[in-house]
Amino acid sequence: MSEQATSGNASAANREVVDRIAAARPILVGIRRAAEIVPSLGDLEFLHAGPPLEGWHEACGALRGAIAGTLVHWRSAADLEEAFAMAEAGTVRLGSANEKCVLGTFGGVIARNTPLLVVEDRTTGKLAGAAINEGRGSALRYGSTSADTLERLRYLETEFQQILDRAIQLRGGIDVAAIVEQALHMGDDGHSRQKAASSLFLSTVAEPMVEAGFSSRECAKALRFLATNDFFFLPIAIASAKVALSAGEGVGRSTVVTCMATNGARFGIQISGAAGKWFTGDVPELHGKYFSSYSKQDAGPMIGDSVIAETLGLGAFAMAGAPALAPYVGGSYEEATRMAVEMYRITVSEHPRYRIPALGYKGTPLGIDSALVAETGIAPIFNSGISHRDAGVGQIGAGFGRAPLRCFHDALAFLRQ
Amino acid sequence: MSEQATSGNASAANREVVDRIAAARPILVGIRRAAEIVPSLGDLEFLHAGPPLEGWHEACGALRGAIAGTLVHWRSAADLEEAFAMAEAGTVRLGSANEKCVLGTFGGVIARNTPLLVVEDRTTGKLAGAAINEGRGSALRYGSTSADTLERLRYLETEFQQILDRAIQLRGGIDVAAIVEQALHMGDDGHSRQKAASSLFLSTVAEPMVEAGFSSRECAKALRFLATNDFFFLPIAIASAKVALSAGEGVGRSTVVTCMATNGARFGIQISGAAGKWFTGDVPELHGKYFSSYSKQDAGPMIGDSVIAETLGLGAFAMAGAPALAPYVGGSYEEATRMAVEMYRITVSEHPRYRIPALGYKGTPLGIDSALVAETGIAPIFNSGISHRDAGVGQIGAGFGRAPLRCFHDALAFLRQ
Repeated sequence: MSEQATSGNASAANREVVDRIAAARPILVGIRRAAEIVPSLGDLEFLHAGPPLEGWHEACGALRGAIAGTLVHWRSAADLEEAFAMAEAGTVRLGSANEKCVLGTFGGVIARNTPLLVVEDRTTGKLAGAAINEGRGSALRYGSTSADTLERLRYLETEFQQILDRAIQLRGGIDVAAIVEQALHMGDDGHSRQKAASSLFLSTVAEPMVEAGFSSRECAKALRFLATNDFFFLPIAIASAKVALSAGEGVGRSTVVTCMATNGARFGIQISGAAGKWFTGDVPELHGKYFSSYSKQDAGPMIGDSVIAETLGLGAFAMAGAPALAPYVGGSYEEATRMAVEMYRITVSEHPRYRIPALGYKGTPLGIDSALVAETGIAPIFNSGISHRDAGVGQIGAGFGRAPLRCFHDALAFLRQ
Repeated sequence: MSEQATSGNASAANREVVDRIAAARPILVGIRRAAEIVPSLGDLEFLHAGPPLEGWHEACGALRGAIAGTLVHWRSAADLEEAFAMAEAGTVRLGSANEKCVLGTFGGVIARNTPLLVVEDRTTGKLAGAAINEGRGSALRYGSTSADTLERLRYLETEFQQILDRAIQLRGGIDVAAIVEQALHMGDDGHSRQKAASSLFLSTVAEPMVEAGFSSRECAKALRFLATNDFFFLPIAIASAKVALSAGEGVGRSTVVTCMATNGARFGIQISGAAGKWFTGDVPELHGKYFSSYSKQDAGPMIGDSVIAETLGLGAFAMAGAPALAPYVGGSYEEATRMAVEMYRITVSEHPRYRIPALGYKGTPLGIDSALVAETGIAPIFNSGISHRDAGVGQIGAGFGRAPLRCFHDALAFLRQ
């Protein structure tokens, strides 16, 4: 199967795809309302992670909470009860965020007014966006709708957004790849550990934030938010992965994977040679570590677009460079490294810029080849937070999972038609 | 020898020493003029790294440049020519910085007006200080005396010092151990790589700097200096190591090493059971990597107090956690890890807080036992920058070296008297 799929046209096309992905120059260009990036976005339309859902009946707890919370937050519903009733009655419209080149982390939904961190690929001009990370624990993206959560959202969507956007403009954009490159030398994996990248980001924007013309009280508050959020860089990292992978879409009969994501009901992938088409399978189970008193019984299904990091060869694919992350996702560094190194067997290249010092500065595995996945039976691995099954609780753990093999077999069969 | 030296009293004393060292709670409490910390410091007195020098005739190029530059900088000499003439004539007095609980990095000298980053051990109340890191390349501590170098020094000693000191006061001090602990999870070794610690430090002080009551122009300039100096945290780290090791001095007949340092003419160590006494040997040769067109022939002798980091079990002792550092000092990560792990054979304990995720969160090697060094013949390893042999050039490379075994044998012989 592999010989057939990657020989001739597919092989040259795969090479072209990874070259295009590696040529991306992702720059954080600002914070904009989603409607500016996705003008077609209607009122009461919510973009969610993963492939399209059939409707509200398929939405998991975290997603339901995020939608209801957003309705209340923007005064489209008087309270959560009314919000849930509206959703049940079919008033809200759902759509796949990924298909609009924006990304939802966990249950986080994107609606017209959602402020997005926007990344532009200076090579292709493509844009991608992801919502501002609210911090760990209670957060809208996990379905939390507490007063604290909504108060913080209001702050992020007004004063914080203004000061950070102005700082980004003063710098003419922030070079995302430069930060990711360094963070991979500093124990980050580029997905579930963003401590170094978030700190380097703060170091980069602190000076222009001070020069942005806001009061010292406002500036100090914004810096405090950044300093206390180790995951701030996550949406920037995944939007950057998305623009890079977008550059690789639609190349001949390429079998290279350009997207992986889950909507809580189905896991889906896309491949370059069948741009825009989803190949789906069951939502993978996460094996990991639960916080405090939580256990597997409390876990909701995995949902989120952040597996785009692994699609680019970061996250679990780069865990050989992130020893401090292993215990957080419930494993040992040796095991994490073994699994990460195995990913070179299903990828066609190595990233020229993103490198792992612990592997002698080897480039991260680049270009998941669905033919190699099918041939070896090695499914792409990813790490992810675990959210509670009910709306309103939040993250309760973190772990590893593997993409369902069926997606890759189906993608190859489709190409062969 | 080992059995004799570490048995009975020595063994209990060694345990006591490492317990005291590990109990330190180093807090950065502010920036003060050296005369406030070392009131005995006279005019035209210069404290240098390592054990005491006999006089100017023993001073290496980097140290001579630093002294002459300081004389010009503070207008004690009209120009470098006059400054060198003053020094040759014996007008300046030299002393060991380490003996006053302050530290010189490379040729960096400490005189009455030198602003020091001051660390207090909240367990013992002891203070230690080290001069502000000026950044890589041309710097007074490497003997550079260019107009740029002196202009930057003037800035650091006035506006920058004021704003950072005020920020530290607003925070009631900065917890140094908390930063070192995290940085060791982020690819720093705690000595020659300070990129993570410097970024975390900026993240910690940015908010209070904004609140310190300075103009946004002044604040932005200070943040820019911090953001562009990957070594800013180095003096804070070594002052923190010094207060911790000081707590272990003078315990019975302990054979644990409490200080290592070099003055460019001699390498010296101190052990707990013979507090205040130096045991010296030849300055070790550094094996490493030279920048651009420089080579071994250009290298000056190793000088500096920063090997105090290794004395605490950081630096080369912690290189298993710093894969990105290995090429900088001219080695592979495997080799660096092998050498670092060997250090557990000459140490009596592990640090309870400073841990290496890549070694399964094992504590860093703590308490170099001179008896174990003598018994195994394994000399403590360290990494270090390499400075040019002539005054005024600066750093030309970085590498590894080993402490001379003679120091440890002599220390044991002294204790046995």
